[in-house]
Amino acid sequence: MLGKDYEAQDCSLARALEVVGERWTLLILRDAFYGVRRFSDFAAHLDIPRAVLSDRLNGLVEAGLMERKPDPDHAGREVYVLTRSARELWPALHALMRWGSRYRFKAGKPRRFMHAACGTELDEHSACPTCRVVPRADEVVTVAAKKPFRDDPVSAALQAERRLLDPLVL
Amino acid sequence: MLGKDYEAQDCSLARALEVVGERWTLLILRDAFYGVRRFSDFAAHLDIPRAVLSDRLNGLVEAGLMERKPDPDHAGREVYVLTRSARELWPALHALMRWGSRYRFKAGKPRRFMHAACGTELDEHSACPTCRVVPRADEVVTVAAKKPFRDDPVSAALQAERRLLDPLVL
Repeated sequence: MLGKDYEAQDCSLARALEVVGERWTLLILRDAFYGVRRFSDFAAHLDIPRAVLSDRLNGLVEAGLMERKPDPDHAGREVYVLTRSARELWPALHALMRWGSRYRFKAGKPRRFMHAACGTELDEHSACPTCRVVPRADEVVTVAAKKPFRDDPVSAALQAERRLLDPLVL
Repeated sequence: MLGKDYEAQDCSLARALEVVGERWTLLILRDAFYGVRRFSDFAAHLDIPRAVLSDRLNGLVEAGLMERKPDPDHAGREVYVLTRSARELWPALHALMRWGSRYRFKAGKPRRFMHAACGTELDEHSACPTCRVVPRADEVVTVAAKKPFRDDPVSAALQAERRLLDPLVL
């Protein structure tokens, strides 16, 4: 059994992977950038065992990447919200997505990311080629580039153009 | 048991993680960017079971991220070399490292990355602030910023300033 730490590696990448390197964690963070905040919405969109989802969300809270807050629409429930440090993972996440689109995706890019201020598509370095800035996640809009092959309500809601980090309310 | 694929996720990030998301894989790629090419050098630097290292290297070869080539210094042996698609993972890897340095590393940044042409340290978007370009990996030099806590020969050799992708010969 391999653990999740890399104690013997004196390296910033190893430290990052200790908190984001477990299976499913980066996909959970991706969904949070898309505005997913409720346990049931993560579960509907990700199709992972609820025990695994719960473990990963708890780990993200413990590591300071997510905070639990009261759900404004459901008394007694909670939502999971990205902290500032987690929001700064956006360029790394976008770089991995771009690489995946370019080298691993046979079926055409499934989603586009644009600078909200001008509508220009981000380049492979998460920069806006028109404005020559690297927008923060909350300055980025995204839209699906094709029909999803999933039919859950979260996939349907994420088809429309949305600003990253805007709470998804179903 | 969780598998390594994410068939039900119609997403570029999921496709990327299917090839780089397994435990240890990004650290193996990191070492390859630092110039490590031999099985025994990866093993010395990473301290992982040889069966796991072998599995990950085979997976990277199968996925087209590494090629096996004859070792120029040892007849009959092979080295593992990053392909073009793998080399384009550099900005994603660098972004994760920067994030790890900033948010997860208590002991100070262990390593610096500079644009070889001008010596300027790369910013958090892998760009050179002086030349206003994003250098390719082979246009970047790296140097350890402090003594390693490991005493294997690969860690020692990686203390000096080196250009990324230059073969490490011990």
